[in-house]
Amino acid sequence: MLTAIVKLTCQDRPGIVHEVTSFVLSNGGNIIRVHQCIDQLDGMFFMRIEWDLENFLIPRGSIEEYFGTLIGKKFDVDFELSFSDKVYKLAVFVTKSTHCLFDIMQRCMIREWNAEVSVIISNHAKMKRYADMFGVPFYHFPINKENKTEQEQKETELLEELGIDYILLAKYMQILSPQFVDHFAHRVINIHHSFLPSFKGADPYRAAYLKGVKIIGATSHFVTSDLDEGPIIDQDVRRINSNETIDDLIKNGRNVEKLVFSRAIGLVLANSVIIYKNRTILLE
Amino acid sequence: MLTAIVKLTCQDRPGIVHEVTSFVLSNGGNIIRVHQCIDQLDGMFFMRIEWDLENFLIPRGSIEEYFGTLIGKKFDVDFELSFSDKVYKLAVFVTKSTHCLFDIMQRCMIREWNAEVSVIISNHAKMKRYADMFGVPFYHFPINKENKTEQEQKETELLEELGIDYILLAKYMQILSPQFVDHFAHRVINIHHSFLPSFKGADPYRAAYLKGVKIIGATSHFVTSDLDEGPIIDQDVRRINSNETIDDLIKNGRNVEKLVFSRAIGLVLANSVIIYKNRTILLE
Amino acid sequence: MLTAIVKLTCQDRPGIVHEVTSFVLSNGGNIIRVHQCIDQLDGMFFMRIEWDLENFLIPRGSIEEYFGTLIGKKFDVDFELSFSDKVYKLAVFVTKSTHCLFDIMQRCMIREWNAEVSVIISNHAKMKRYADMFGVPFYHFPINKENKTEQEQKETELLEELGIDYILLAKYMQILSPQFVDHFAHRVINIHHSFLPSFKGADPYRAAYLKGVKIIGATSHFVTSDLDEGPIIDQDVRRINSNETIDDLIKNGRNVEKLVFSRAIGLVLANSVIIYKNRTILLE
Amino acid sequence: MLTAIVKLTCQDRPGIVHEVTSFVLSNGGNIIRVHQCIDQLDGMFFMRIEWDLENFLIPRGSIEEYFGTLIGKKFDVDFELSFSDKVYKLAVFVTKSTHCLFDIMQRCMIREWNAEVSVIISNHAKMKRYADMFGVPFYHFPINKENKTEQEQKETELLEELGIDYILLAKYMQILSPQFVDHFAHRVINIHHSFLPSFKGADPYRAAYLKGVKIIGATSHFVTSDLDEGPIIDQDVRRINSNETIDDLIKNGRNVEKLVFSRAIGLVLANSVIIYKNRTILLE
Repeated sequence: MLTAIVKLTCQDRPGIVHEVTSFVLSNGGNIIRVHQCIDQLDGMFFMRIEWDLENFLIPRGSIEEYFGTLIGKKFDVDFELSFSDKVYKLAVFVTKSTHCLFDIMQRCMIREWNAEVSVIISNHAKMKRYADMFGVPFYHFPINKENKTEQEQKETELLEELGIDYILLAKYMQILSPQFVDHFAHRVINIHHSFLPSFKGADPYRAAYLKGVKIIGATSHFVTSDLDEGPIIDQDVRRINSNETIDDLIKNGRNVEKLVFSRAIGLVLANSVIIYKNRTILLE
Repeated sequence: MLTAIVKLTCQDRPGIVHEVTSFVLSNGGNIIRVHQCIDQLDGMFFMRIEWDLENFLIPRGSIEEYFGTLIGKKFDVDFELSFSDKVYKLAVFVTKSTHCLFDIMQRCMIREWNAEVSVIISNHAKMKRYADMFGVPFYHFPINKENKTEQEQKETELLEELGIDYILLAKYMQILSPQFVDHFAHRVINIHHSFLPSFKGADPYRAAYLKGVKIIGATSHFVTSDLDEGPIIDQDVRRINSNETIDDLIKNGRNVEKLVFSRAIGLVLANSVIIYKNRTILLE
Repeated sequence: MLTAIVKLTCQDRPGIVHEVTSFVLSNGGNIIRVHQCIDQLDGMFFMRIEWDLENFLIPRGSIEEYFGTLIGKKFDVDFELSFSDKVYKLAVFVTKSTHCLFDIMQRCMIREWNAEVSVIISNHAKMKRYADMFGVPFYHFPINKENKTEQEQKETELLEELGIDYILLAKYMQILSPQFVDHFAHRVINIHHSFLPSFKGADPYRAAYLKGVKIIGATSHFVTSDLDEGPIIDQDVRRINSNETIDDLIKNGRNVEKLVFSRAIGLVLANSVIIYKNRTILLE
Repeated sequence: MLTAIVKLTCQDRPGIVHEVTSFVLSNGGNIIRVHQCIDQLDGMFFMRIEWDLENFLIPRGSIEEYFGTLIGKKFDVDFELSFSDKVYKLAVFVTKSTHCLFDIMQRCMIREWNAEVSVIISNHAKMKRYADMFGVPFYHFPINKENKTEQEQKETELLEELGIDYILLAKYMQILSPQFVDHFAHRVINIHHSFLPSFKGADPYRAAYLKGVKIIGATSHFVTSDLDEGPIIDQDVRRINSNETIDDLIKNGRNVEKLVFSRAIGLVLANSVIIYKNRTILLE
C-alpha cells in the first residue's frame, strides 16, 4: 500500500483536525492513522496523518501544492509531506564500537526500515573490515585538530554527492563542528550513553558510578551545535546493582544504547517525529 | 527469630569474608544471609551479615565489644551492629501531599517494617486531620524566614525527646537548615520528584516537560546540607508520552514517588544500606 | 470545566471520525481529546471523544438522544455517554490485606478520582477498624458454603440501595457466584496477584516460585463468571532475583498489585476503557 | 587474569561457605566473586565461587580431584569446575529470522563472550547468505516428517565432530525430537516469543493479542523434551498499547527476544546458571 504522510504544526484552534481529515476524505483518501498532540504551555497543535493513495484524486506530485494552499496558508500551518515508498539513504559514522552498527545493518537488511546504509565512515581504518563484511562502501577520515575542518568538508561533499538523508553517529567518538552540524540540521542523530540531561560529555558511565545512581540509561537525540543538548528523540534505562563495576556498566549499557538508538532512528524514518523548540513530539 | 546484623566497611583484602564468617560460626551462630560488595576504584569492601542469635555463645550485650576487638581492630574495619527486634521510631514531615504518608502508615500498621510513626510534623495546620485519622501525635510548626531557626530548634528538641531514629521528608516543601541536617546526619531521608542528578530544585516536572525527556523519575536520598545532592538510596522511572501535560506528570509521578520512597525507607530500616563517599551501597 | 465523554464502538469505515467530530464542532463543542483505535482482525473501530460543554448548543439532557439519532443509528454505532461531573460510588470488598484499600482511599480523599468509597464490605469483622479510621460505613458479611447465596443476596440489596457504580475486589479472598457477577456485569473489578494468563487460581506466587519465572506481575480485570478469565484492564510486572523467598515475592508483589489495581480503576473511572470480546481497549 | 569457577549444589548446612572459601584461601587463591543462594522449600544451597589462579598451589589439572575429595565427598556436594580461558563453541540454528543471529555474532566478534560460532545450521538454504557474510561454515538440513530422524542424526554427528558446547535455537522454527534434546541435555538454549508459561506453542503474539494482555514478553530456556517447558533462564517484557497490530507485536517483540536470548546465553557462558528441579538459579 502506497501512503502519503503529513506532519503538521500550528497554533491549536477548534476544527483543525476536522479540516485536515476533510481534505483527505473529500478527495477520496482512506485514512490509515491519525495521531495528534498538544503543547499545553504554548497552545501548539501537532498532527501526523497517513492515508492510502490508491483512490486519492489529487496526483501525487500536486499534493504538496494543494495541501499548502487549502490548509497550510488558510490555517498558518507548518507541514511536511512524505510518501511511504521513499527509501532513505543513511550514512553511519563509527569509531570502534560495533553494537549499534550491527543493529542498524540487520534492520536495513530485513527491511524493518525502508532504508539502506549507503556508506560507513570512520576515523579508524580498521572498521573497514565490518563495512566489507556487510558490503557497504567505506571511507576512512582520520581526524585531528589540524585537519578537522578540511576532513569535514570532504565528508560533507561525499554525503551530498551520495544524497544522504540521515547521518547516524553510531558511537562516533568525535565532536562534529557547528558548521557541519548546521549544514545537516535535524539530519544528524546521535546516541549518548547516559540518561540526559544527566552526565553530559565524556565518560558518563564513570560519572554515574561515582554519583551512585541506581539506574542508568541512554539517550538518542538530534545533534545541534550545543553538545549533548539537541532535541531528545528517545531514552531508556536499566536498573543497576551495587556489584557492577564501571566495565559492567559499559558492557550492559550497550544493550540499552543500541535499542534506544534504533528506536529513535525508526521513529524518524517513519516520519513520526516533529521538532518543536528543542524538544521532539512523538506521534506514534 | 532474633538475629544480629553487622554492616561493615574496610579496605578489601583476602580472607576478610572468611574471618567474619569464622567469628559467627565458631561462636555457634547460624548465618542467615551474607551480602558483599566491592568498590573497584578505591578497593573498598562492604559486607552485611545476619545470623540467628539462638545458640550464639557471646551474650547480646557483648557482641559489639567482641566483634570490635576480634575483627574491627584487627582488620581496621568500620562496623555497625543492630538487632532484628529493634522497633524504629519515625517522624514524618509533610506539607500538603498525602500519597507518601498513606503509603508509610500502611506499611507500619501491617508491620511490613519493624517501625512506628511516632509523630507527624507539618508546616500546615490542616494536615492534623490525617494525623488524627491515623491516631498519630501531630505538631504544627509554621515556617517563615524569621522563625525558621527557632522552629527548627523546637523540632530538634521534640525529635530528641521522642527518641526518633529517622526523619522522613514525605513531600515536605521546606528546605532544612544545614544545622538541622547535620544534627541528624544520615537520619533524614527525602523523596525528590525527579531522576537526580537531573532537575534538582523546585518544579522538576515542569523542567522535565520543557526539556522534552521521554522518561521521568523519582529519587530517594539522605539529606545533606548540599541541596538534592545527598547519597541516593533508590530511584525509579516511568516512560511518558507526548500527550501528557505537566499536571499528568505530577499526578502519575506520585506513583513512582511513593514506591521509591518506601523502598528506600525499607532498605534503611533493614540495615541494608552503607554510606560511602556520598554514595550508598545496597546490600540486599 | 464540564465535559461530555462519548465512547463508541462500530465497524470501521471511512469518515467515521469525521462524522463524530462534525457532530461536536457544528454544535459549538470544543474538542478536548480524541482517542481512537482499530481492531485489525475484526475491522472494528473504537473511539473516545471528550468536549467542553460550555458553548455546546444541545442541552445536556438531550445529547444522548441527538447523538443516538444522528450518529448511532446512521452508522450502527454502539456508544456510551458520560459527564465529567459524575461522582462515582465505589464499594470496596476486602478480606485481610490493606495495601489496596489505603491506596484507593488516598486517591478518593485527594480527589485524584472523581469518586467516593461509599461502603467497605468484608468477610472478616476485624477490618471494621480500617473503615472506622477512614470514616466509611462498614458491613461484615461472613461467608461459608451454607450461607453464601443468602449473604450475596443481602450484599446485592445493600449495593443497589447505595447506588454503587463499581465494586472493587481489593484482595477479597472469596469467589463470587456467577449470579452475583452477572448482576453487576462489567462493574466488578479484581486485582489478581499474577501476570495472567499465567498462574490462575490460588497461591500464584508459590506457583511462580516453583516454575522459576524471572519476572512476576499482577493483573487487574473485570470479573466474569469464568474465574480469572475476565477482560484484562491493566497489568504490570517486576523482575525478581534468585534470592527471593515466597514471602519476599508476596511482600514485594503488594507494590505491583496496588498500583496496577489503582491504574485500572482510574482508567475505568475516566471512561477510557471499552470492552470488546473479552478484551479491553484502552483509550488514554 | 586466569580464574577457576566452581558452581555447587548441596543440602544447606552451617559452615558450607566457610569450608569452600577455606579451600580456596588456604591454598593461595584470591577470591574474585562469591554468589550464593538458598532454595527455601527444599533447603538447598547453591554457590558460585571464582578465584584467581595465579598463586594457587593446586595445579590446574588437579583442582577437580582435590575439590571433589576435600569438599565434594565430605559434604555431599554436586559441583562443576570451569576455567575462564575456555572458549565455548556454539552452533546457531536458524530458520528465517536474523535478529538473534546478528546479536550473537556481534557479541562473539567483539569477545563480549568468550565464545565462537563454529557453525550455522538451517532448514532453509537461503540463510547461507548470512553465514557467508559472517565467515561461518553453513550446513543446510531441510527437515520434513520423513527425514527428520535421519537429518537430526546427521546434525548430531556434525555437532559432535565439531565439539560444540551449546546449541542456540535462534528462532529455529522446528521442534527437535526428544532423542536429539536428550543427547544434548542442558546444552540446547531456545528463545520463545512469549512470557512463559503464558502462550506456549505456535503463534504466541496472536494469542496474546486475542487475550488482550497489556504486556508481552520473551523467554529463553533450556530445551527439554517437554515443549516450551524447560528451565527458564531469563525473561523480559514490554508494555503494549491498544493501537498495536499483531505485526507491530512481532516487529517490536524482536527487540525483547534478541536481548533476552543474549542475556541468557551470556549467563550460561559465564557459568552463572545452575539447574535445579526444572528451574534455574542465577548466580550473578
